[in-house]
Parts: sequence; C-alpha cells; structure tokens
Amino acid sequence: MEIIRSVDQMRRRSAELREAGSVVALVPTMGALHEGHLSLVRLAAELADAVVVSVFVNPTQFGPSEDFERYPRDLDEDARLAAEAGAEFVFAPDVSEVYPAGFETVVHVQKLTRKMCGAFRPGHFAGVTTVVAKLFNVVRPNVAVFGQKDGQQSAVIERMSADLDMGVEIVRGPTVREPDGLAMSSRNAYLSPEERMDALVLHEALEYAERLYRCGETDAALLTDGMRTLIESAKTANIQYVVAVDAKTLEEVTELRAGVMFALAVVVGKTRLIDNVVLGGTERGRETRESRDDG
Amino acid sequence: MEIIRSVDQMRRRSAELREAGSVVALVPTMGALHEGHLSLVRLAAELADAVVVSVFVNPTQFGPSEDFERYPRDLDEDARLAAEAGAEFVFAPDVSEVYPAGFETVVHVQKLTRKMCGAFRPGHFAGVTTVVAKLFNVVRPNVAVFGQKDGQQSAVIERMSADLDMGVEIVRGPTVREPDGLAMSSRNAYLSPEERMDALVLHEALEYAERLYRCGETDAALLTDGMRTLIESAKTANIQYVVAVDAKTLEEVTELRAGVMFALAVVVGKTRLIDNVVLGGTERGRETRESRDDG
Repeated sequence: MEIIRSVDQMRRRSAELREAGSVVALVPTMGALHEGHLSLVRLAAELADAVVVSVFVNPTQFGPSEDFERYPRDLDEDARLAAEAGAEFVFAPDVSEVYPAGFETVVHVQKLTRKMCGAFRPGHFAGVTTVVAKLFNVVRPNVAVFGQKDGQQSAVIERMSADLDMGVEIVRGPTVREPDGLAMSSRNAYLSPEERMDALVLHEALEYAERLYRCGETDAALLTDGMRTLIESAKTANIQYVVAVDAKTLEEVTELRAGVMFALAVVVGKTRLIDNVVLGGTERGRETRESRDDG
Repeated sequence: MEIIRSVDQMRRRSAELREAGSVVALVPTMGALHEGHLSLVRLAAELADAVVVSVFVNPTQFGPSEDFERYPRDLDEDARLAAEAGAEFVFAPDVSEVYPAGFETVVHVQKLTRKMCGAFRPGHFAGVTTVVAKLFNVVRPNVAVFGQKDGQQSAVIERMSADLDMGVEIVRGPTVREPDGLAMSSRNAYLSPEERMDALVLHEALEYAERLYRCGETDAALLTDGMRTLIESAKTANIQYVVAVDAKTLEEVTELRAGVMFALAVVVGKTRLIDNVVLGGTERGRETRESRDDG
C-alpha cells in the first residue's frame, strides 16, 4: 500500500501501471471508509489488476451551510482499510494540490443535475463532476466504481464520462446496509439515538414500494405517496424528495418497470440522508419494458 | 494520411500510437485550412512523432446569428494540405458523432472567458473548451498546438488543461499574415474588396502600438487610445474591443512590459476579425518585468 499525496506522483504511478499492461480501477471516496466503500474496493479488485482509492474531502461539493468542516477524516485508518480490501494505492491530495490558486474550470452535467439532490444542493454536482474529471485525468483508470447508494451521482458520472469521451467504464456497486436496513453512510455518525431509529423509515419506505411492485403494482404515484406517508410518521424526519425515476436518465416515470429507481432524500434531525432501490425484473416488469423498447 | 470519422477508431489509432511509444501532437481546427493552420501542423510535426489534425466545425461555439452554416468546408482539400504539412491523421467526425442525442455536459473556464471575445460571444468559449476536452480525451495527445492569433482561446485552453490535470502540453504557434499584414483567417474570404482594404487597420494598429513600445512607451491606455483612433479611420470597421492584457492571465495592464498582449476584435462590414501581438523583451521591458516579479 502506497499513500500518494501529489498529482504528479499519482500520474507517474498510473503511467507505470498502464505501461506494464495493468488494468487500473479507481474508487473515488471522501474517506471515512465504511463497509459500503470497502465493498466497492473489493469489486474494483475483482475487475482490475491495480486499485487506486482516492480519499479527498472535496470542498466544492459542499454548500456553505453543509458539513465540510466536520466531515470525518482519518487517513491512516482509511489507508489500512483500503489495503485490507485490496487497494494498492491511496491517492490523498491536499486541497491546495487539487485547487491551486487561479483554478477556475468547471465540468457540469446540465440537466441530470437539476432535479432530486441537485435541486436541494446547488453547485453540488458541478463540484463532484469537476473533481471526478480531474481524478480520471490523473489516474486514467480503465474502470471507476461508484456506489449505487448515490444513485443520481452515478447517473451524472456516467453521463459525463460518455459525453466527454473519457473512455472510463463506470460500474455501480450495490448499496451496503446495516443489519437493520439503514444504508451505510459516513454521515450516519451524526445521528442521535432517536434519529438513528427514525432513520430506519428510509429503508422501510423503499422496501414497502419494492414489495408492492413485486406483487404487481405498477402505479408509481400510488407508491411514492405511500412512501411519503410512511416517512412522515417518523418525528425527526423531513422529506426533501421521494421519486420514481429511470435509474439511468433520471426521468420520472408513472408506470413501474425493471430499471426504475425509487429514490429519496430525507433530513433526519439535522442530518441529510439519501437512499434508493432499483427495481429488478418481474415477469410483468420485463414485459412492460420490452413493449416500451418497441415503442 | 488516414481520414478518421469515428471516435472509436480515433481512440484505437491513438492507443496504438502510444503503445508504440510515439509522441502524439494534436492540431484542432475547423478546417478551411490556410497557411496559418499549416504552420501549426509543421510545428506539431517538429514536436511529435505523429500529428493528428482534427477538422470539426463545432456548432456549439457559434452564436445563433453567427456563420456556422456558411463556414467554408472542404474535407478532401483539408486532408491533402494537412498531409503535405506533415500530418498522419485527419480526425473529422460528424456532428452527431461528437454530440449524440442526450449530450448535456459542458466544460467551462469561468473567469478568463468573461472578457474580450467572451463578452461579445456568449457561450462561445464553453463550446470551445467542451469540444477540445473531448478531442483531448479521444486523441490523448502529448502536445496540442493552437494559434496565437486566437490569443484568448489559447489562454483559456491552457487554463482548462492545467485545471483539469489533462496532462497535455499546450503550445502556441505564431500568427501567419498575408503579405500586407492581415492575419490569416478562414473568415477573410467573407470580405468585400473595400472591407479587405479597411481590414488592414487591425494590423496597422498593432504595429503602431508595438513600435511605440519598442521606442520606450509603457503607457498602455495611451497606445490603446491611439489604436482606436487609427481603426475608427476605416469606414467599414467597428471596434468591439482594443485591450492591453497579460497574455496568460488576460488581466488588463496599465504599464507595458514583455508578455503583454495587445488584442482587438473589429467587425469589418459584417465580418468579425480578431488579431493580437504579444510584446517581446526590450531592455526597458525586461527591467520592468523583473522589478514586478520581485514585488
């Protein structure tokens, strides 16, 4: 395990890897690694010869009232965990290395970022796509692994990579959950015991919707309404959005089918949590999809 | 000489070149190649083992009332000229290959693009940086050559390449002029005989300013005022801007020194022309520069 702090050094190392014919995978993170991240590192290690985990708490993707300052940081522990999960390199540049004086370029996916989290976190996704574009250019990975938990982020990154001909294959790793269903997140640590209980409604609402879909319900609005009612029953929970969208295009759907994502953002106490589930194929779902593809 | 129309084919060819250890240079153009472009191709051939000339009339960098439709196009002639000047590949993708349905990502240099041409051509530079980022990602050149005639564009591309860690060395090739001093441009063909005569004031104004600087004048405003008076004497010429700026940061200067660029945009008849000159070192200029670097 090598911890790399400079862009130049990272660029040299990945050039060496490419010259040696290695397939390189990148797992971009903000550190505070938990089992969710580590599952992505393990997936990356299956897909590639060398895995780079970037650890960078990116200031430009935090809003002015958000938690940039108090976001948890522990590089040594992150490096230990990443190595254990199969990473060869941790790329952890300083903010001044990533954004030197005079920096003024932005990479922006214009439409996918307007809705859902983008509507509540102006500038967030431009911060994400800009830093990921930089990471891609420095590491030049063959494949990059992102978590399905950040479903909109994955869709936005896929769009950016395709639009700008980056030649990086984007893979989404499945969401990892606590035993009681709460999606793993570095921000779960902010929750009080009461909020931690209330936070379970996120997953409960998604399970409710997925269960009814499996039973044959295809009315998206009916299920998102039910999810809202369920979430509102938790005292410390305030909904930002609950939607049913195509997992790739993020377009809202009225009729459920495989490939639709139920996604939600809920502020629990003062902590903003997101979660989602992508519907799989049911017999009925598959039929619906095929008939749409024909149309 | 190979003409490549598809992104995938270009990507494969440049991967082969890299694997063979070749240094690759890219010269991005909109075609209608003239001696200005060809001097860049020759410079690229000196710097690299393989030269790719891209020929793409990029719709996103034209405003709605600009000349996208009538911009001159002749791919066969461009390929012949590029080959003669030392290019191995012409990359000439269709618009639908560059911007497939659903395309929505933009690369934007936020500050350098506000002034000068950017103030008169909203969206122009975002169109340029987005398409150049794509070309860089497909071709992955070691070096890219741009014309100093588009001085602001060069500064913007340098900024983008550095900010996004693209790892592409940007080289500016000198402006090539007609015997009477008019900077070569594909748009010169739009000029009527009277306008063609009037267009000479652009270069005359730059020569006037450079001459006085060489004689020791360091007052930027005095010279830009003189340039304006000179240009206004031409009946069909309408000034958009005349400025003295740092050639790299584009910040306006009050005192002249080496590295300052006099730049101007003038509409002659209905044709928008730009030109510039970067001041070299004079004894006095060098002293001024050194004393500034100390400060």
